[in-house]
Amino acid sequence: MSKKARTEFFPSISKIQFEGPQSTNPLAFKYYQPDEVIMGKKMRDWCRFAVCWWHTFNGQMGTDPFSNVKTHLRPWDKDSSMETFLTRVDVAFEFFTKLGVDYYCFHDVDVAPQGESLTEFQSNLDTISDKLLSKQKETGVKLLWSTQNLFSHPRYKDGAATSPNFDSFAFGCAQTKKMLDVGKKLNAETHVFWGGREGFATALNTKVKSELDHMASFLKMAVAYKKKIGFTAQFTIEPKAREPTAHQYDYDAQTVIGFLYQHGLENDFKVNIEPNHTTLAGHDYEHDLRMASALGMLGSIDCNAGQPYLGWDTDEFPSDPRKALLSMLIVVEQGGIAPGGNNFDCKLRRESTDIEDMFIAHIGGMDCLARGLIGACKLVQEGLMKKALETRYSSWNTSSLAKKVEDGKATLEEIEAYALAASEPKTSSGKQEYLEQLINRYI
Amino acid sequence: MSKKARTEFFPSISKIQFEGPQSTNPLAFKYYQPDEVIMGKKMRDWCRFAVCWWHTFNGQMGTDPFSNVKTHLRPWDKDSSMETFLTRVDVAFEFFTKLGVDYYCFHDVDVAPQGESLTEFQSNLDTISDKLLSKQKETGVKLLWSTQNLFSHPRYKDGAATSPNFDSFAFGCAQTKKMLDVGKKLNAETHVFWGGREGFATALNTKVKSELDHMASFLKMAVAYKKKIGFTAQFTIEPKAREPTAHQYDYDAQTVIGFLYQHGLENDFKVNIEPNHTTLAGHDYEHDLRMASALGMLGSIDCNAGQPYLGWDTDEFPSDPRKALLSMLIVVEQGGIAPGGNNFDCKLRRESTDIEDMFIAHIGGMDCLARGLIGACKLVQEGLMKKALETRYSSWNTSSLAKKVEDGKATLEEIEAYALAASEPKTSSGKQEYLEQLINRYI
Amino acid sequence: MSKKARTEFFPSISKIQFEGPQSTNPLAFKYYQPDEVIMGKKMRDWCRFAVCWWHTFNGQMGTDPFSNVKTHLRPWDKDSSMETFLTRVDVAFEFFTKLGVDYYCFHDVDVAPQGESLTEFQSNLDTISDKLLSKQKETGVKLLWSTQNLFSHPRYKDGAATSPNFDSFAFGCAQTKKMLDVGKKLNAETHVFWGGREGFATALNTKVKSELDHMASFLKMAVAYKKKIGFTAQFTIEPKAREPTAHQYDYDAQTVIGFLYQHGLENDFKVNIEPNHTTLAGHDYEHDLRMASALGMLGSIDCNAGQPYLGWDTDEFPSDPRKALLSMLIVVEQGGIAPGGNNFDCKLRRESTDIEDMFIAHIGGMDCLARGLIGACKLVQEGLMKKALETRYSSWNTSSLAKKVEDGKATLEEIEAYALAASEPKTSSGKQEYLEQLINRYI
Amino acid sequence: MSKKARTEFFPSISKIQFEGPQSTNPLAFKYYQPDEVIMGKKMRDWCRFAVCWWHTFNGQMGTDPFSNVKTHLRPWDKDSSMETFLTRVDVAFEFFTKLGVDYYCFHDVDVAPQGESLTEFQSNLDTISDKLLSKQKETGVKLLWSTQNLFSHPRYKDGAATSPNFDSFAFGCAQTKKMLDVGKKLNAETHVFWGGREGFATALNTKVKSELDHMASFLKMAVAYKKKIGFTAQFTIEPKAREPTAHQYDYDAQTVIGFLYQHGLENDFKVNIEPNHTTLAGHDYEHDLRMASALGMLGSIDCNAGQPYLGWDTDEFPSDPRKALLSMLIVVEQGGIAPGGNNFDCKLRRESTDIEDMFIAHIGGMDCLARGLIGACKLVQEGLMKKALETRYSSWNTSSLAKKVEDGKATLEEIEAYALAASEPKTSSGKQEYLEQLINRYI
Repeated sequence: MSKKARTEFFPSISKIQFEGPQSTNPLAFKYYQPDEVIMGKKMRDWCRFAVCWWHTFNGQMGTDPFSNVKTHLRPWDKDSSMETFLTRVDVAFEFFTKLGVDYYCFHDVDVAPQGESLTEFQSNLDTISDKLLSKQKETGVKLLWSTQNLFSHPRYKDGAATSPNFDSFAFGCAQTKKMLDVGKKLNAETHVFWGGREGFATALNTKVKSELDHMASFLKMAVAYKKKIGFTAQFTIEPKAREPTAHQYDYDAQTVIGFLYQHGLENDFKVNIEPNHTTLAGHDYEHDLRMASALGMLGSIDCNAGQPYLGWDTDEFPSDPRKALLSMLIVVEQGGIAPGGNNFDCKLRRESTDIEDMFIAHIGGMDCLARGLIGACKLVQEGLMKKALETRYSSWNTSSLAKKVEDGKATLEEIEAYALAASEPKTSSGKQEYLEQLINRYI
Repeated sequence: MSKKARTEFFPSISKIQFEGPQSTNPLAFKYYQPDEVIMGKKMRDWCRFAVCWWHTFNGQMGTDPFSNVKTHLRPWDKDSSMETFLTRVDVAFEFFTKLGVDYYCFHDVDVAPQGESLTEFQSNLDTISDKLLSKQKETGVKLLWSTQNLFSHPRYKDGAATSPNFDSFAFGCAQTKKMLDVGKKLNAETHVFWGGREGFATALNTKVKSELDHMASFLKMAVAYKKKIGFTAQFTIEPKAREPTAHQYDYDAQTVIGFLYQHGLENDFKVNIEPNHTTLAGHDYEHDLRMASALGMLGSIDCNAGQPYLGWDTDEFPSDPRKALLSMLIVVEQGGIAPGGNNFDCKLRRESTDIEDMFIAHIGGMDCLARGLIGACKLVQEGLMKKALETRYSSWNTSSLAKKVEDGKATLEEIEAYALAASEPKTSSGKQEYLEQLINRYI
Repeated sequence: MSKKARTEFFPSISKIQFEGPQSTNPLAFKYYQPDEVIMGKKMRDWCRFAVCWWHTFNGQMGTDPFSNVKTHLRPWDKDSSMETFLTRVDVAFEFFTKLGVDYYCFHDVDVAPQGESLTEFQSNLDTISDKLLSKQKETGVKLLWSTQNLFSHPRYKDGAATSPNFDSFAFGCAQTKKMLDVGKKLNAETHVFWGGREGFATALNTKVKSELDHMASFLKMAVAYKKKIGFTAQFTIEPKAREPTAHQYDYDAQTVIGFLYQHGLENDFKVNIEPNHTTLAGHDYEHDLRMASALGMLGSIDCNAGQPYLGWDTDEFPSDPRKALLSMLIVVEQGGIAPGGNNFDCKLRRESTDIEDMFIAHIGGMDCLARGLIGACKLVQEGLMKKALETRYSSWNTSSLAKKVEDGKATLEEIEAYALAASEPKTSSGKQEYLEQLINRYI
Repeated sequence: MSKKARTEFFPSISKIQFEGPQSTNPLAFKYYQPDEVIMGKKMRDWCRFAVCWWHTFNGQMGTDPFSNVKTHLRPWDKDSSMETFLTRVDVAFEFFTKLGVDYYCFHDVDVAPQGESLTEFQSNLDTISDKLLSKQKETGVKLLWSTQNLFSHPRYKDGAATSPNFDSFAFGCAQTKKMLDVGKKLNAETHVFWGGREGFATALNTKVKSELDHMASFLKMAVAYKKKIGFTAQFTIEPKAREPTAHQYDYDAQTVIGFLYQHGLENDFKVNIEPNHTTLAGHDYEHDLRMASALGMLGSIDCNAGQPYLGWDTDEFPSDPRKALLSMLIVVEQGGIAPGGNNFDCKLRRESTDIEDMFIAHIGGMDCLARGLIGACKLVQEGLMKKALETRYSSWNTSSLAKKVEDGKATLEEIEAYALAASEPKTSSGKQEYLEQLINRYI
């Protein structure tokens, strides 16, 4: 009993319940019903929601470039000791459980103090991951993905896999190997590689080609080690266009996928798409989800949102029903997102200082995407959009020459002959305005 | 004699002369001396300048989205007849010759009227290309690159190689085949593929995967035909991020290069980089030149400039000495740009209505890049920047383990062992501020 | 009877009916019920929808910077004769009537051919405006606002009110005077000034101060003439950040309002806000609506939409329910938008070539905003957002010193004394995540 | 002697000398010769260079949003004690003196610890400002401008002058009053108001009108107090478009100037322009310098640089010779920048970790602007640009009606009469390409 009291960090919050769309209770679900089946799958299995450790429990929340003083004051963030880190594990699993989320994600440095040496850090990680494993078993909450932070320590100021300093590269390899071990131990379903500072502040001091080659070598070694230890998680790379460096190599989905093909890694990695990174590359919110999915490479999602006229990663909780529909539509059309999921790589605004805001924001994000899922399923089931699409491309199905083109057997000469004999093509309306309004039916 | 008088379209302009940096004559070169040898090569061979037909002679110059009334009134732009098109050939070669430029570039529709049918268009192209060939022989001016316009005709409103309409695809193939024939006839040194409308206005009506596959098929057929007819030109693809479509597939250099690897086309194409397209993708002016060159894929340059805070392609003449230095440095470091060149894909501002502005703008652009070339050669020869670069990466040359990484023979385990035994990496200053000021020495 | 047949330009379209949210008929309203009363006002009076002439009937629809060939082929667009222009009046009023819209807007050059001289243009305008007046009386459709086009004619290539050429300035004045006469004749409820090319392509050739002073003089003369002729329309200025010039003077709402104060014009003009212009200035979609409304200066709305990652004015029909809610909320909170309205300064995509797309797009836009209106009224009536706002600012109501500050009677010294005696301020959560999710309740 | 040894913080650096443009010594001036007279004024008086305290000496240098671990390790940054702050005064003045800069700038919180209360902070400021005054007298280095930091303390998380919390407003007033006293004590020539968090993260929780009115009240109280104490410094407001808030009220120069007119403050404030803020508003680097100067409101400059494709304030040292020319040209044309100056609101890149980089960066920035100054003077003296400008606007000088317009005495009617009688305006070329190349002559 006293034990229970000790671990109750959110005493005023009960397990979040479903109250339906008309509820005005910010601490209730309006759309998300985890066990409701829709298009043959439970909502929880379509959504696979995860809470991220770094924005929610790292102890430094609520700072920004104009103030290094945190505004998110949590009673459990006492100091930098192992004890505080261990307490945060209890906090986190209470949070996961009350929220009703099935997954979480973390970087090595989020959960354990780095200590004075790599050796000490590894030891701390062992202790913490024992507790994480125990809590996973106790609660049923699972690890969506594991990753290593190769960008916060000053040794990585110039990058890790692309550092001009071989020792920094080596330390990055060591952290990665350890986190592959930890990921395996905790049954991570995916392991993410985000190239924190893999890029350049200025090209004037940078050997671009060498750095890219070193990055490929690093990824190949990680694949080899994963296979060696029998770690079965999906590997993903997370693109980002800029920030912290001025020019990141993994600019966007197409860039990363191309890089994988160039280095023969296309079967070893998929991509983890964060819409706020997509928009920093100058694309629409859902663009990289779509491109990756179309190319069979969408592995997981960091389901946050940015602001289109701000040029940095704001990592906001998703709150736009239309974008939620378009995103979840891509997930529905590819049949799901497992072994990836929707990870809330989102942070409370610096001004949002109430502890309950942690719950409100996650509930809001989960509801927003659940609403998108419900609409997306209805849209697919009604088939009006699909019908418009099939009509638009029908000429590719009715010509034997078109078939030959698709089979790679046609020549320019025979197509020219066809064109010279044909009359001017009859194009048809793209019906964009119709389709833009049609999808509002599902919101 | 009277015949000569008839073909003098710029009677007030003589052949442009070199007057040196202190000249205030807008109709003289200040830096460009074509036959001056620098780092073992004539300036003309480093620069390989070309005038583009479309912005200079297409007869529709000086319109914009807010006025379809042209302001660049040229006495020779009488109508849309073959005669006017033939006259423009004379105008163009007089311009090239007086300007002292060695190359030009054109799309099929720039030089010949499209007539009522593909057949008529092909016939018009035959007539015009006969005259072009004759003028090339007469003047020594050469064709840097040929290309087909697959975006202006309404049949391509939804794309060409990626059109949902197979007939539009077929007409695009026919135009391409013809222009490969014309390119061969005129000894084009390069042939460019710019994906005008290859992308989408909205994804709601678009099958992204099918369209990309059709594009790959199209490119493969072009390669096959090129080989069949013995056309030896270099093939290049020109990336662009957006405009006219909202989302172009060939977003930037890395995207295109990745696409080539994905489809096994990496040995058949290089890229033609236009800095104003690069900036529309959210990259620095010279970013794609650098990335393409580093990956061995920089084939040619559309040496224009944009304005960083305008979100559309302004196609201005280069006028920034620092950007010119950085661009030409990349050319110098890769040993030249042949069989590509620097094509002025640039247009006079709508407000610049004097005929002499055609000359002033090209002279200014040539001088700006020539100044960049002179500085770049000096920078390379003095070696200060190179020295800083070698120092920064020296750790990769002194460790046998680093060598093993570069050879692809290392494992995470042995690198971890190294890191655990090592002390914290000693990073060094990136010296960005030093290098940023150092390069100003060469301007 | 046969006469009626002659003027039936949309024979397949009947008057648009209301079918409710679940209708899949693209030619029916789902939300817009003009005579339904909501918060004390008919929907038509809240919305005051207008069709714009220039994107809908100017005869050049469906071109873009990469093709000057129009794709929107309308049988009535025969040539540039007065007869064609007169026919378009019939087309337009049939369109307005069938659509069920109450207002329209036009520039002088949209409705009448410019002829060979200003005199001829004025005469043409007289003829056409007679017919417009007659059709207004016949149908009950009214003129929301009139305006003059001072940017398409080549004489305005360098601006009109800010032209370096006095004669261009003078022609601009003449066009403006005439359109004030025409606006009065047609009972325009507002008259808009959009500074087409008032700005600069480059500052290198521009006297910024002189140009701004000329613009102020121009506006003052327009105010004087309006008063003289007893024209009672509201005057508005429409801000735009860029395009066609690189740097427009009337950058955004705050800039224009500040300019009005600087020149003592703040009581003579309000602003006409176009969200797609707002976003080109780097602001959120609804930012300028909010700022203008807060400052008591929101006069009218060009209710279109852009794409956040495209840097040009795309003039799309509104289709985002959340943005519609936020926009209409501002209208509801200020009690309406009369004598302005919601003008669809929107154009069909170039690819949307069906005549019925004209209807579909306008219906969709009207429905989107009507849905926003319904949600905004419910949001205001439920009062949850207002309550959060009042709580947040409550400290300003409970302190006498705060009152003194608001009355402009406090001094730094007495406030310092208060602060020195006070304990550290107790800030409270901004509740952004709560509010972001709350508004989704009304979509 | 031993005392001198104790205060030598840069033992390896001697006073920076002038070596001329061909010098390769990063620790020497190439263009800046402070006592050289050019166009009637010493270079030091044209430039009025200042070092900012916050990026150079605040003890937290080298962090970024992805790492709160600083990389700029300075031996004197021992802790947060008064002793460390006092030592930094010695460091700073040694730096100023060796660098050869005449001015410095600071915020209250940069130079003194805030302690446990406002009272303690004021006392600390008294102690530190005594030492600053003493060092000013000893070295001759002067205070260009003083300011208060109303954005770093958590009490200002929602703004200061625009806070929804009156107590936060009051604390901001107290800090401001104190810094006006300190500014007077130290003979600050200017006092800057930068509205750190004056704006909003979301409008959903914001009363825009109230906040703007509170800001005006705040500024009026500051003006009153300044007059009361006889502080003669120029007051300036520094615009910024975004960051830290999503929407800052003081968006850009025109916005701020308009606000001043709206509130009758136009004679009490000028603007302090930071080009990196200008570019965040979507304008060219020098745009706000130009607009402010044209309107007689350019008070001072934060002479830094950003990167056009990064959406945040990077605060880099100026290194572009063309931008330096254009900026200094504006200063030269308005006859100087006193009582403001060029303040290096610039920070070393996080990767630039050598202590000597502090010098290299400032020397580079000073040289870059000095080179711009030299070119600007030559450009003005040669008069070619001015001549082109006068020609372009000549029609405004030759018409009596134009004069009447400029005098505000003309009417639309008489101008219409003139236009109807005139022939079509003869526009002339804007000569942009000529002018763009012409200015390169001065680089």
